[in-house]
Amino acid sequence: MNGRLTDTIAAVSTPRGKGGVALIRISGPDAGRICELIFAPKGKISPVSAPRRAVFGSVIYPGGSDRAGEEADTGICVFYDGPRSFTGEDTAEICCHGGVLVTRDVLGAALAAGARQAEAGEFTRRAFAAGKISLPEAESLGLLLDAGTDEQLKLSRSGLSGTLTFECTRLREEITFLLADLYARIDFPEEDLGSLSDEELRGRIEGLRNSAAALRGTYKRGKAVVSGVTTAICGRTNVGKSSLYNRLTGSDDAIVTDIAGTTRDVLTSTVSFGGVTLILSDTAGIRDADEAVEKIGVERALKRAREAELRFFLIESCSVPSAEEEELAKTLLSCPGDTIAVLTKSDLGGARPEAEALARRFPNFCRISAADGRGLDELERTVSSLYPDGGVDFSHDPVISTARQYEAVDRCASALEDAVMALRDGFSHDVLSVCLEDAAGALSELDGRGQGAVSADVIERIFSVFCVGK
Amino acid sequence: MNGRLTDTIAAVSTPRGKGGVALIRISGPDAGRICELIFAPKGKISPVSAPRRAVFGSVIYPGGSDRAGEEADTGICVFYDGPRSFTGEDTAEICCHGGVLVTRDVLGAALAAGARQAEAGEFTRRAFAAGKISLPEAESLGLLLDAGTDEQLKLSRSGLSGTLTFECTRLREEITFLLADLYARIDFPEEDLGSLSDEELRGRIEGLRNSAAALRGTYKRGKAVVSGVTTAICGRTNVGKSSLYNRLTGSDDAIVTDIAGTTRDVLTSTVSFGGVTLILSDTAGIRDADEAVEKIGVERALKRAREAELRFFLIESCSVPSAEEEELAKTLLSCPGDTIAVLTKSDLGGARPEAEALARRFPNFCRISAADGRGLDELERTVSSLYPDGGVDFSHDPVISTARQYEAVDRCASALEDAVMALRDGFSHDVLSVCLEDAAGALSELDGRGQGAVSADVIERIFSVFCVGK
Repeated sequence: MNGRLTDTIAAVSTPRGKGGVALIRISGPDAGRICELIFAPKGKISPVSAPRRAVFGSVIYPGGSDRAGEEADTGICVFYDGPRSFTGEDTAEICCHGGVLVTRDVLGAALAAGARQAEAGEFTRRAFAAGKISLPEAESLGLLLDAGTDEQLKLSRSGLSGTLTFECTRLREEITFLLADLYARIDFPEEDLGSLSDEELRGRIEGLRNSAAALRGTYKRGKAVVSGVTTAICGRTNVGKSSLYNRLTGSDDAIVTDIAGTTRDVLTSTVSFGGVTLILSDTAGIRDADEAVEKIGVERALKRAREAELRFFLIESCSVPSAEEEELAKTLLSCPGDTIAVLTKSDLGGARPEAEALARRFPNFCRISAADGRGLDELERTVSSLYPDGGVDFSHDPVISTARQYEAVDRCASALEDAVMALRDGFSHDVLSVCLEDAAGALSELDGRGQGAVSADVIERIFSVFCVGK
Repeated sequence: MNGRLTDTIAAVSTPRGKGGVALIRISGPDAGRICELIFAPKGKISPVSAPRRAVFGSVIYPGGSDRAGEEADTGICVFYDGPRSFTGEDTAEICCHGGVLVTRDVLGAALAAGARQAEAGEFTRRAFAAGKISLPEAESLGLLLDAGTDEQLKLSRSGLSGTLTFECTRLREEITFLLADLYARIDFPEEDLGSLSDEELRGRIEGLRNSAAALRGTYKRGKAVVSGVTTAICGRTNVGKSSLYNRLTGSDDAIVTDIAGTTRDVLTSTVSFGGVTLILSDTAGIRDADEAVEKIGVERALKRAREAELRFFLIESCSVPSAEEEELAKTLLSCPGDTIAVLTKSDLGGARPEAEALARRFPNFCRISAADGRGLDELERTVSSLYPDGGVDFSHDPVISTARQYEAVDRCASALEDAVMALRDGFSHDVLSVCLEDAAGALSELDGRGQGAVSADVIERIFSVFCVGK
């Protein structure tokens, strides 16, 4: 990767499509030279001679290229001299007209002047390499651009503002302090150099362990917000699945009728519900289908239900469950993940104890009326309780949300737990220091600070999900 | 419209979608105040105090709003003090992260601080109102953003650089000079004040008439480039229509088989061919269809052919035309617009004189082999000849391309033609000056210069096709 940092990259950083304005970014050691080659200011000031100043002018194909001297567009150019730029390198940003072909030409001029087309996420990767941004911040930035719900936006903003990085730094500094104390005791055992009493040492290691465990505890909710929870709405035909789907998505995507077997295709929609992100599927009603096309729908629904992380199992409160529903209940109870039994049409009256008995076989159940929305708040609370936030404020407290972050925090918390045990069981300070070193190493892996803390593969994976131009 | 110019507008000016960066533009008398309300610089310099300087900071919801004090995003803000801005008004541009929800929030902060959501094209309309841009330039800008072919891009760049505006100004100045001369003769007939001889006057008016007529002559090609020419590929089944369509579009959109009646739906694609833009339709083969679905396809094809501005009528060179083809030829010959007869499969040999005789009934015909591409250059030249460019260089010469521009130029050319006639037939200088005044008025309508030269309705129509944020 380091070899790739020596050249100068360029890309269109705004979304592709029709818009008034587009931004082309050029970053690297040659950004200034390329800027002078392709940007002709209308006035006397050139962007490179006046960093951070917005300069109006023309973008011109450079000499030696196929279209040398031809104007690609007019626009505003700002030059940022490194390290005071997003990437930490010299960077030129050209704001030009927003047509697809115009931006292609402006980028073309930069490439003709010697820049290389940037790969996905390469600007951010350079910002990371220059120490301008930590790995969790880069991950938050990716989420920010993709955010589809306000919960995701809140979490990504918090991460981008450095909450997780700060917590990481705080824990590591505490560990470093304790390690220094331990090393003094190990190296000069006679001189009693440690500044902390054994009691104080124990208290501080336990405090660290608790912090790491609390951070680990944010993962279930964090992941549920960021990656979303695959959620299947299932139940027999005509029990109100499409009505609930439409209630939750606020749309009329699903066709609601009282003819059994209306929904054949599996509909999917992403919604924010109970503080988490549900990737919601409306499925065909489960029943013994006669028609071939519908049979396929039913099979697909069952597969979807089995694979989902969360299921809403809808049961009509005023009817006696059929044999097929009893069968379905058994299947759902044996699936991994969570199932919430939902008694529907609770507004119609005439509730049957058999329906409630079936619902009660599930650890979570509630009543709703999708028609008027009653009971949805109870369903929301139930969903929320399955993904506890551990009393954490997602706007300001550190939260982890990716498998990579979880692995590092889990390793850190386990090492600190080992340290607490080692201290309690009277192991030597050598053993204790090994545990603390392991915990510190896990934190470096988390925020990517320190030489070689994270492998090139991992970094590659993090930035490859970014769009080109970021 | 003037009432609407007193407030401050804001919009996301970059395309909606996933990208690294987005730009929010705020323009109007309050832009500076709004900028200070919502943008907190990280350093000591505020954007408003240092116009045209890129300042890093946070976008914050303003006091008094629902989310007062909350950070919407971080980014770069540049303030342009009017009239040195695109709109001619005070303008703040905030470059922030590119997610859909983030940009919504940054715009939300600007709206909460008192800006109004801009309407489509409103920034450009303000630039026009401030005299920063002429109407033809605004029209070219709209085309630039939409450009889908390189010919469109070339034409829009030329227009945006002011070629048409300059020509308009040149003609009007010449007319104004001649009018001044005429007024002197009219007001003081005894004193022989005119600086021009009658011969000179005639020569200059004829020169003007020729310039206006030449400009009018660019319309057919200009319109063909900008709006495109609806073009139907027609002919009996299995004559090679889909092969030609695929050759021209460079795609495999149309399914090519040797089973007659494969193409039922009408395919459409926009291509640059012969220097113009063809909106190409591949149609079902015309024949007496038995099957109901195919019958609909054939009817649709005939309708499409009748309505198209240009038709490629494909005839297999090695077969004897059927009665249906003779019938179709008659229909096409009676349609308005142009038809080019195209003898296909010319590579297979065994040409039949009957096929060529049918083709020769059309004013334009050529031979192609869609299989290997032979003859396509001849077809391209034939298309080009139907939309003559009048020897005009579309990169640098003035060209008109919209119905609005054509009407104005046509009126100007006709008025100048009348002036030439009036002079030849010995009409008074009064009559001559009325003709020249009419010609000058038409030019003002063309470039929108001069108070009330263009009605508010027309201006409304021009800018309404722009996207929001431009």
